Amino acid sequence: MGKQNLTLLTDFYELTMMQGYYNNKNNDTVVFDVFYRENPCGSGYAICAGLEQVIDYIKNLRFKEDDIEYLRSLKIFDEDFLTYLKTFRFSGDIYAIPEGTVVFPMEPLVKVIAPIMEAQLVETALLNIINHQSLIATKASRVVYAANGQPVMEFGLRRAQGPDAGTLGARAAVIGGCIGTSNVLSAKLYDLPTLGTHAHSWIMSFEDELEAFRKYAQLYPHSTTLLVDTYDTLRSGVPNAIKVFEELLQAGKMPERYGIRLDSGDLAYLSKKARKMLDAAGFPKATITASSDLDEYIIDSLKTQGCKIDSWGVGTKLITSRDCPSFGGVYKLAAIKKDGNFIPKIKLSENQTKITNPGNKKIYRVYEKDSNKIKADLITLVDEEYSSDNPLLLFDPNATWKKTYLEPNTYTLRELMVPIFLSGECVYTSPSVMDIREYCKKEQETLWDEARRLINPHIVYVDLSNKLYQMKTELLDHYVDNQII
Amino acid sequence: MGKQNLTLLTDFYELTMMQGYYNNKNNDTVVFDVFYRENPCGSGYAICAGLEQVIDYIKNLRFKEDDIEYLRSLKIFDEDFLTYLKTFRFSGDIYAIPEGTVVFPMEPLVKVIAPIMEAQLVETALLNIINHQSLIATKASRVVYAANGQPVMEFGLRRAQGPDAGTLGARAAVIGGCIGTSNVLSAKLYDLPTLGTHAHSWIMSFEDELEAFRKYAQLYPHSTTLLVDTYDTLRSGVPNAIKVFEELLQAGKMPERYGIRLDSGDLAYLSKKARKMLDAAGFPKATITASSDLDEYIIDSLKTQGCKIDSWGVGTKLITSRDCPSFGGVYKLAAIKKDGNFIPKIKLSENQTKITNPGNKKIYRVYEKDSNKIKADLITLVDEEYSSDNPLLLFDPNATWKKTYLEPNTYTLRELMVPIFLSGECVYTSPSVMDIREYCKKEQETLWDEARRLINPHIVYVDLSNKLYQMKTELLDHYVDNQII
Repeated sequence: MGKQNLTLLTDFYELTMMQGYYNNKNNDTVVFDVFYRENPCGSGYAICAGLEQVIDYIKNLRFKEDDIEYLRSLKIFDEDFLTYLKTFRFSGDIYAIPEGTVVFPMEPLVKVIAPIMEAQLVETALLNIINHQSLIATKASRVVYAANGQPVMEFGLRRAQGPDAGTLGARAAVIGGCIGTSNVLSAKLYDLPTLGTHAHSWIMSFEDELEAFRKYAQLYPHSTTLLVDTYDTLRSGVPNAIKVFEELLQAGKMPERYGIRLDSGDLAYLSKKARKMLDAAGFPKATITASSDLDEYIIDSLKTQGCKIDSWGVGTKLITSRDCPSFGGVYKLAAIKKDGNFIPKIKLSENQTKITNPGNKKIYRVYEKDSNKIKADLITLVDEEYSSDNPLLLFDPNATWKKTYLEPNTYTLRELMVPIFLSGECVYTSPSVMDIREYCKKEQETLWDEARRLINPHIVYVDLSNKLYQMKTELLDHYVDNQII
Repeated sequence: MGKQNLTLLTDFYELTMMQGYYNNKNNDTVVFDVFYRENPCGSGYAICAGLEQVIDYIKNLRFKEDDIEYLRSLKIFDEDFLTYLKTFRFSGDIYAIPEGTVVFPMEPLVKVIAPIMEAQLVETALLNIINHQSLIATKASRVVYAANGQPVMEFGLRRAQGPDAGTLGARAAVIGGCIGTSNVLSAKLYDLPTLGTHAHSWIMSFEDELEAFRKYAQLYPHSTTLLVDTYDTLRSGVPNAIKVFEELLQAGKMPERYGIRLDSGDLAYLSKKARKMLDAAGFPKATITASSDLDEYIIDSLKTQGCKIDSWGVGTKLITSRDCPSFGGVYKLAAIKKDGNFIPKIKLSENQTKITNPGNKKIYRVYEKDSNKIKADLITLVDEEYSSDNPLLLFDPNATWKKTYLEPNTYTLRELMVPIFLSGECVYTSPSVMDIREYCKKEQETLWDEARRLINPHIVYVDLSNKLYQMKTELLDHYVDNQII
């Protein structure tokens, strides 16, 4: 995103509503939650990501002179409102779950507590950033899970939905577990390993494939991966690669890392055949990299078929999250401060799962003590304190007869949200992306295997505290009793 | 994309190959084509878009000192290559089909003729930009087609894949036919109409819905669209909206444009009920806007069900092209200049449709003279000249017995590609986005209805000239005869 001022990266209605609040002299402090209702891609969890860019955005929120000029040209904003915008700064609090954390539906990933004009303005950009990166981080974690310990490289820039989607997408993919990216700009901006070798055009720029391979191996003597499918993989590409490896061996110039890349055709069949050819020629250490419209399902299927692939270059279907290209994060008003107290607010819907959780909330993650695996998440009001010294009764808010009782000291608790901004000041330092990646890996280890599987995963419960549940029920009753619904 | 320097927005292998060409002292002039193999979303055509951003990118291609520093830190690039990069400029020619043109598979949308080092570097960014915007423009044109003359508004920023995807996506959506966007930054950057009213949070910030509606109508007296589904659409939202319209009428303050927006629930049922309620209350001119996970299929289905919706706000499924979130544009070497002549190059594949078209090419669009509808596209070599004074024999390159014979003067011809850069100088001025939108609308009128329908559209033929077909066949034979395949 770099240097583009993103202050106008907002839906027009945020600004018309802001002016509305301004004219009504309503600048009450409010609580907005960013949360989502369903895990993407049929996953049993999501990985939250994008916080570093949210922080940049909030820090740089300023209406420049040309922004004001533009808004004036729309002839819908009053001069006193435009004057107010000139000195606009974010002055509120933001709490968030750190990037790379495993998260579940309905829990606030980000919580904004700010005067309503400020809280309203930032809605769209926050959703845009969090939705995008959480989507790609989640997708990447699934692809990496399918690769089962083998390296996955992010190769999708050319098919990403614009420059940011490629660059921020690569960032998120690495958070989700990719070992690096082909995207040089992203690698530079976020200090990621950059990866890649050569394309078909390299081969085609030479008279023949063998010469192209030879030259490439000369140029990059430490790490030589040869793309073998320009003409014919098994009849031309692999034999020519082997010839080059033999020449290097005879010359005493064997690269530290060497191998081939398959980019088309039946990867199960070709990798098995290529493996045999490489082994027979005395190159059991030659690696086989595959790329070609891969995703978690294809990788899983290739592995089931006994493919002989060592590493994976994943492009289009990861960088666009092809089977589910949006993350349904929403931004909902949860409370309004009146006379020092947060008055809970609720958004109704005929659809039970679309009814929001009211109030100023926090989240406890409940781990089974012995395994350190996630037992459930518990959303509570901020003034509730829980301790693992006490027994804990969890219940499903949608089916309250489903109860789980935890004995004292059989579980541990962790609060998920941390302060990011307090009174407009940033109080949080984002870790490096590679550190977030490490953290994310550990986070995924707190999931039961059943919650990680690609298809039909176990659902991790996100429960409400009794106090929050009662508050929600009372608010619903209030609306029903008053015949509003 | 703004001010971010995009020179490093490239796959790492473009740079390693560049260094390879540099070290091999190979800087032959080459021809690369950007083309795609299949229309997205099951469409019968695509809309090409993104050229203005390609031009910006090419104009600003410069390795800054910190880019060089970063590349040096990777310890894979030689100092003389890095020195070469410092003064790197694009010096070649680029031809392209203007934005907003209806295009078909296999035809070059962009053609780069440049020294191979330059042509190789720009691959990834060109594909990223053209793939993204062509995808969204195509998707938008389908949604607009389904709306059948009713306005479609782009509302997707919060679910777009990052800031650029929202902002450049809105640009592309307007090219494809949307009347405007909620994205203020995009509206500012590309001079687009900006649209939108208020959110549920506006309603929830007041004690009751009626008061929220009243205030909103006071604030925006010229155009008042009230969101009616915060609590209960038919029992609360619509009656309250009607009450406000009645009050405005009595006060002699009826807005020029007024109406309601439905954002959830069964839009067919709710719109019919709401229409009756509005009509019965004496407001037949109140418009009904709908939003809520719409796409071309849902709009089409709602219309079939006799919905009473007047305008459409389309978000997630348009801005991500949800059912097909990538456009498969590729960048393939077509020729290498040796001793002043272009030597054709071909990329083979076991899959017939993946075999590239060799040579330095251009495209004629063939229109039926009477109707001005597209008969076919004809890809030829650049030195071929066609005139509609002559008869024209078209044949399907994949089934050469399928022939169409056109009598002289029963058809017209138009060359699709125009020069964009010549010897590194930009010779093209991009029209405004709203002008491209108008052009695109006329372009779509050159399609037969059968090619525009949403499902199973008629395929428009893209044929090869006899000379190009012969060249391709000879190249294939050469490889087969030499047992390369």
